[in-house]
Amino acid sequence: MTDHQTLKSRPLTDVRMAIRQGGYQSHTAGLGAGYLQCNLAILPQAFALDFMRYCQRNPKPCPLVGVSDTGNPMMFTLGHDIDIRTDVPAYNVYRHGALVDTVTDIRGLWTDDMVAFALGCSFTFEHALQKAGIPVWHIDNDTTVPMFRSDIDTVPAGPFRGKMVVSMRSVDAGQVTAAAATSRRFPLAHGAPVHSGDPAAIGIADVMCPDWGDPAPVASGQRPVFWACGVTPQVAIEAAAVPLCITHRPGHMLITDIPEDAEVPVLSS
Amino acid sequence: MTDHQTLKSRPLTDVRMAIRQGGYQSHTAGLGAGYLQCNLAILPQAFALDFMRYCQRNPKPCPLVGVSDTGNPMMFTLGHDIDIRTDVPAYNVYRHGALVDTVTDIRGLWTDDMVAFALGCSFTFEHALQKAGIPVWHIDNDTTVPMFRSDIDTVPAGPFRGKMVVSMRSVDAGQVTAAAATSRRFPLAHGAPVHSGDPAAIGIADVMCPDWGDPAPVASGQRPVFWACGVTPQVAIEAAAVPLCITHRPGHMLITDIPEDAEVPVLSS
Repeated sequence: MTDHQTLKSRPLTDVRMAIRQGGYQSHTAGLGAGYLQCNLAILPQAFALDFMRYCQRNPKPCPLVGVSDTGNPMMFTLGHDIDIRTDVPAYNVYRHGALVDTVTDIRGLWTDDMVAFALGCSFTFEHALQKAGIPVWHIDNDTTVPMFRSDIDTVPAGPFRGKMVVSMRSVDAGQVTAAAATSRRFPLAHGAPVHSGDPAAIGIADVMCPDWGDPAPVASGQRPVFWACGVTPQVAIEAAAVPLCITHRPGHMLITDIPEDAEVPVLSS
Repeated sequence: MTDHQTLKSRPLTDVRMAIRQGGYQSHTAGLGAGYLQCNLAILPQAFALDFMRYCQRNPKPCPLVGVSDTGNPMMFTLGHDIDIRTDVPAYNVYRHGALVDTVTDIRGLWTDDMVAFALGCSFTFEHALQKAGIPVWHIDNDTTVPMFRSDIDTVPAGPFRGKMVVSMRSVDAGQVTAAAATSRRFPLAHGAPVHSGDPAAIGIADVMCPDWGDPAPVASGQRPVFWACGVTPQVAIEAAAVPLCITHRPGHMLITDIPEDAEVPVLSS
């Protein structure tokens, strides 16, 4: 079993092979530096059109960066050799909306009827914030970003609907505008914040009590800034009670061959 | 019948009502200033998932900005009251890939099985080029932009495939970089150019002989700059020989309620 520290200095192909062969089953933060990482949702084809509409209508929480052919596990627009059944360190398996299992390989679950969706994630804009000199507390302190169920409605599509989940990062008051402008440049990684300031304005009663992840402080002189979060589609999928759905395990992302600063998330041939 | 000059000074709601009531059946350039205009493709649901995948995989020629519910003609994410059956000035009707009719109302063709797709168009980045002081010859000379079938392959999805169609605008050599940076800011309107310079490098034999539209000069000191073009999906739809497909008539676009500079093409409720 390879550890995170070792893999961090290795090229992307080594990282992918370690994951594929089951030799690495932990989180992917900091791995494959410079390449786009993705949230994952795998659904039966009968739900695929509505789910794709849901993503199109809610591009900030659900920025669609890749869709497989039905039944083909190779994500050929995102990489030269990405097999979605083995190339994610850990998967969550949902049946009728309930989490029933966490596994490291889904070859036994994949069928000819499956469609895999890759969605952009916050790693991309967090790297950009750091490069712009805006510290990201949960990264510096090795915790999970705090996430909240807001009262912002998403736009429904078929059975997919629900409130938007948001993640919170504290930003010095003087850097809020820069943080918004920086993240807006990444529409495939949640884009600009959906709110900054009073948490109650978007239905969050206590900013120190996240619904997912770990609490993070809002220091004096800082403002809480809220971005649309990739847990939103997971909530919509639970609401839809899809018979079988497979997602990545949070933090255990799909690492693609697409550079983080690519104009479009499609492999140039 | 209202004329273009009269409608140009009228608010968007007046423009939409004139189109809906059949009182305006001409092109939409310059109408509803500041609002996003769209290419249109309406297909049977059986083709919708593959067509949506085709757009996702080819975001520069096919930037998806809106998708209807199956059978619901109201494009509720793009406007408060947009009926896709009546609110486009003119439609082309294709059967098995062949153009069979041009009409101004499709209420008689719309069925419970139809899905409407709105795709971003070049008007948005052309306005941005003009604001940046980069002249756009075909607008200044009231002609149609020259379009070419390039030798660039699109990424296929199901039956949808084909070469990318590109549009050409001549830009002063010193402004090519600025033109690219300006248009890149509009990923929902074809984004950055796909090529500039030698037309032969992308399979264009004679830049003065476009496959669609009117020829436009490349003056001394200028370079031809090529952008992905919204005719590309039309070519893919023809190749797929979809039994029934309805598009806008070129130049006769859907005008939405979405501001051209909106971060996402979804109506805020």
